[in-house]
Amino acid sequence: MRSPAPCITLTTDFGTRDGYAGALKGCLLSLAPGIPVVDITHDLSPQAIVEGAWCLRRAVPKFPPGSIHLAVVDPEVGGWRNALVVMTERFLLVGPDNGLLSLAAQDDGIRRVIEIRDRPGQWSKSASFDGLTLFAPVAAHLARGRELEDVGEDAEDLVSLPEPQPARVGLALVGEMLFADRFGNCITNIHRSLVGGRSIDRVVVKPGLEARLCDHYADVAGSSTVGALWNSDGHLELAVFGQSAAARLGLQPGDPVRLLFKAG
Amino acid sequence: MRSPAPCITLTTDFGTRDGYAGALKGCLLSLAPGIPVVDITHDLSPQAIVEGAWCLRRAVPKFPPGSIHLAVVDPEVGGWRNALVVMTERFLLVGPDNGLLSLAAQDDGIRRVIEIRDRPGQWSKSASFDGLTLFAPVAAHLARGRELEDVGEDAEDLVSLPEPQPARVGLALVGEMLFADRFGNCITNIHRSLVGGRSIDRVVVKPGLEARLCDHYADVAGSSTVGALWNSDGHLELAVFGQSAAARLGLQPGDPVRLLFKAG
Amino acid sequence: MRSPAPCITLTTDFGTRDGYAGALKGCLLSLAPGIPVVDITHDLSPQAIVEGAWCLRRAVPKFPPGSIHLAVVDPEVGGWRNALVVMTERFLLVGPDNGLLSLAAQDDGIRRVIEIRDRPGQWSKSASFDGLTLFAPVAAHLARGRELEDVGEDAEDLVSLPEPQPARVGLALVGEMLFADRFGNCITNIHRSLVGGRSIDRVVVKPGLEARLCDHYADVAGSSTVGALWNSDGHLELAVFGQSAAARLGLQPGDPVRLLFKAG
Repeated sequence: MRSPAPCITLTTDFGTRDGYAGALKGCLLSLAPGIPVVDITHDLSPQAIVEGAWCLRRAVPKFPPGSIHLAVVDPEVGGWRNALVVMTERFLLVGPDNGLLSLAAQDDGIRRVIEIRDRPGQWSKSASFDGLTLFAPVAAHLARGRELEDVGEDAEDLVSLPEPQPARVGLALVGEMLFADRFGNCITNIHRSLVGGRSIDRVVVKPGLEARLCDHYADVAGSSTVGALWNSDGHLELAVFGQSAAARLGLQPGDPVRLLFKAG
Repeated sequence: MRSPAPCITLTTDFGTRDGYAGALKGCLLSLAPGIPVVDITHDLSPQAIVEGAWCLRRAVPKFPPGSIHLAVVDPEVGGWRNALVVMTERFLLVGPDNGLLSLAAQDDGIRRVIEIRDRPGQWSKSASFDGLTLFAPVAAHLARGRELEDVGEDAEDLVSLPEPQPARVGLALVGEMLFADRFGNCITNIHRSLVGGRSIDRVVVKPGLEARLCDHYADVAGSSTVGALWNSDGHLELAVFGQSAAARLGLQPGDPVRLLFKAG
Repeated sequence: MRSPAPCITLTTDFGTRDGYAGALKGCLLSLAPGIPVVDITHDLSPQAIVEGAWCLRRAVPKFPPGSIHLAVVDPEVGGWRNALVVMTERFLLVGPDNGLLSLAAQDDGIRRVIEIRDRPGQWSKSASFDGLTLFAPVAAHLARGRELEDVGEDAEDLVSLPEPQPARVGLALVGEMLFADRFGNCITNIHRSLVGGRSIDRVVVKPGLEARLCDHYADVAGSSTVGALWNSDGHLELAVFGQSAAARLGLQPGDPVRLLFKAG
């Protein structure tokens, strides 16, 4: 028997006003009394798997070891997609097998993937809302210390989101804009670890438009200069003080961003 | 003395950014220390009583017995509407007497209705925010085990929302679209229990537009077919894969939806 | 050693879908296990310091004494603004020194202002997200009872938001509209305490447009009359039943509102 979980987190695209998110919490509190239920978000764009995967990647690693992370963005509910528990070095992730769990799981190190089996009377697949009938009861049972073996059977792998890597072209790293956050800051797929010991010359957003590499957002305060900095996840991020960089630059996910190294 | 409640839930139209919802939580944590406060939602449309009533109907039954459900959508605050505690088989509901509590209360079985009386120094009606001065203190006292008799006096009944029932017309059940959820799925008032042992022939949304009766959302995946299924509440629901059915079909609350039985 | 805090509250402009708010909660639960984390809001308009300050002013005083209030609206992260802990009569407030904390702090009575110093390995300033690397760890340590002296050094003062006061002009108090809440009610800077023993004659919103002074919102129910009442904070507030007063009256923050006293 494992120890009880320190908390169960929730990450969904349910919104809150239809009562689905509330129903999920009620189910968890009923089946796992005394274990705190913590909202990460219910405001993911409807059926936005990639957005949910990045949200989990940011939030999950900060929680105490042993936390259970329940995530539901599930456009194919009722279909053939699997229902999973993913055990990583420090966590259990519970949700549909559609890529939603993959970024957070890979970052923490996947140790085991379990395909959930129906346990009639305890949990089972449903027509429209596996969150309530399947994932929440499984998360609650796991939170109370139930063994993974009781939940289902080992699976080979899980569906992974593609993660496009920047290309090295001469003295440049050619990456791309991944998405904009709530502030309009543009996160790119250029990770600090790709720089190695090289010196950075400049960041080119578009032909003729350069960003100034800086240490903090405040370095471009009061100006309309585009700042480029390494954010708290280690990704290169473009920002404009007091404005949405995405709107100002007209950047879309997938647009190229170039990091140029100094020669020699 | 009743036992302390396992939790107090909150369902309001306050939003969160004005600080009213935060004030409510602070009041509950101050008066009922140690009892978890759980958000169902604060994002109901302003003054949307029916939306709130359906949200409660979905979420409330999943919570542990003894939970206190505090709900405030209160366009007539300060007027003559009563302030209620409704005791059902398993729960206590606290809020204004304007229909907000009625669906969840009826579903669980109403045992007693109490009209809250002012207790100066403990709780009282106010000009603009009974949530804070009246309902939250009452909910906190009840959560700590205070008797219903201390809160007010028995009332005869509560205001109930109308619930239009489908009409039987020949071989058809003529129901109506009630509302769309966040995903644009259209929930109707045709409940599975009305089918009895009859076989369903088809679902007609509009003249010339039929929905395909299916078991899961995934049955209409990858097509533009309109699916009709029994949702987790037992209501007939219309869905289009990856789209808003409400937008696609141009359906509004009140529009008729027909379920046709097979002859014989 | 101080006692553990009864709770840590969160007030930010992070939204929830990017995972920043979730990361903050994870950090707090990891560093201060067992202490409840309570959302006041994550939906402040991006970088809206004044909105956040008013939200805190409303919510903070209702929480149990000893609560820690963590607030982050931080357009100048990484710049020269200080990072503060403000000790008031009953609370600790943690956040950037940009005015965000000032209204709630002043209302409760400021006893001490501490400028946070980096403690490498425990907390430190970062390029883009002091919420996670600096403010949350400090809040968690304080919640567990750590002494203020361990966190930083005494500072002289904190940045305060301007609070425009109504002017007395003959028999009138000339105040202004501060902001509209989610319902469109217009909150003014005319506080009940400014009335003294005088009798109020009328409230003039615009030339030719008067509001009816009333005790409750319900007093103007079913009519299009503009109501003026003292709200739960003691501020004069303008409301129209079932509508947004801000939209109906075309009122903007800063627009004058006049309260006229009776002669004699």
